[in-house]
Amino acid sequence: MGPVEGLNMPLEEAMRTQRAIRRLRPDPVDDALVLHLIELALKAPTGSNAQNWEFVVVKDPAVKARLAALNRRAWRVYGGIGRRMAKRADDRAMLRIIEAVQWQADHFVEIPVLVVACLKTLILPWPPIAAASAYGSIFPSVQNLLLAARAAGLGAALITLPLWSRFLARRALGLPWNVAPCAVVPLGWPLGRYGPTHRRPVEEVVSLNRYGNRALRPAH
Amino acid sequence: MGPVEGLNMPLEEAMRTQRAIRRLRPDPVDDALVLHLIELALKAPTGSNAQNWEFVVVKDPAVKARLAALNRRAWRVYGGIGRRMAKRADDRAMLRIIEAVQWQADHFVEIPVLVVACLKTLILPWPPIAAASAYGSIFPSVQNLLLAARAAGLGAALITLPLWSRFLARRALGLPWNVAPCAVVPLGWPLGRYGPTHRRPVEEVVSLNRYGNRALRPAH
Repeated sequence: MGPVEGLNMPLEEAMRTQRAIRRLRPDPVDDALVLHLIELALKAPTGSNAQNWEFVVVKDPAVKARLAALNRRAWRVYGGIGRRMAKRADDRAMLRIIEAVQWQADHFVEIPVLVVACLKTLILPWPPIAAASAYGSIFPSVQNLLLAARAAGLGAALITLPLWSRFLARRALGLPWNVAPCAVVPLGWPLGRYGPTHRRPVEEVVSLNRYGNRALRPAH
Repeated sequence: MGPVEGLNMPLEEAMRTQRAIRRLRPDPVDDALVLHLIELALKAPTGSNAQNWEFVVVKDPAVKARLAALNRRAWRVYGGIGRRMAKRADDRAMLRIIEAVQWQADHFVEIPVLVVACLKTLILPWPPIAAASAYGSIFPSVQNLLLAARAAGLGAALITLPLWSRFLARRALGLPWNVAPCAVVPLGWPLGRYGPTHRRPVEEVVSLNRYGNRALRPAH
């Protein structure tokens, strides 16, 4: 089955088998497929239907190298802390994630496509709901992109580390001051595999009417 | 086809026909179905796989009334401005949206289920990427909820107006200070219909390598 036909995957199956795939082959990904996935990303809602998004598709090794350097700088600090914490707690699942993120950092320039999802708006830091509403206009589209990548058989993940400095990320991508980079989705044919994920049980995170009232239980 | 079988809808079809459905029937929605949708929401990614979300399912008319009052207060200001702007520009599509939001505000307490998606974390206002990363751990799950609702045939929309004051929204829902309400999804059997949506063409919002380089064109 080709990647475009894969987009007919049943919705529930796509959701249940979506996971971050960080180890990717360097083989190219068709522009037409990337555009198809972004077109589906644009089907997500935006506040007041503003559609105030911008997507930068990065394939140029020079631009990838600048994002790779930003990613490495942030990962050196953040990954170091994470590794120490995971080792101390003997958290093997977390250590496996950390190894995959390390692989991604080491091979960042070889990743065939980086999609940078941006908001074309001023994100007000206050009141808090203003920021929530702004990000609520970009992350639903990023999730569409991740689900569509999964259905098409492309590896993908949602990362923000290369954007730790918006100033430097804007410079790397030539973004004007009113376009804010929010997330990076590295895309490529996977070395890893998709498959079912484990999550906390729903009854532990759902309250009825008032926080903490764990009265709802799934039937199964 | 029952709502649960509907979740087998092809992914691309679900995405292409997802739209905000604000006019909802007052008929009840099964708890089991709501939990099923939230379980699929939990399949979305979270930063460092923290799964630091909380969902409050509001069915109690007294709690709905408090959120309805908050929504009304914000809508009075925001909707008034929107209506004047849309009338001045003779923007009929926007006026139709405004009428639907007005209907929603007028019938808020009759909506059978309100799902409030929350983050259990401190959302740092600075650096900007900290806030982006935090909201990037809740809005992908909200998008899963919206897509799953669409596939199940339930009407749904993503709104933030009832949360304009986090202080008052926390009081209405009994949320502690470290749980931040981020979005409300009103759910119910639709009076309106799902169907294809219109978006800006992908080539207008995609740049290659550098912002503004509109070199990528879809094949069709």
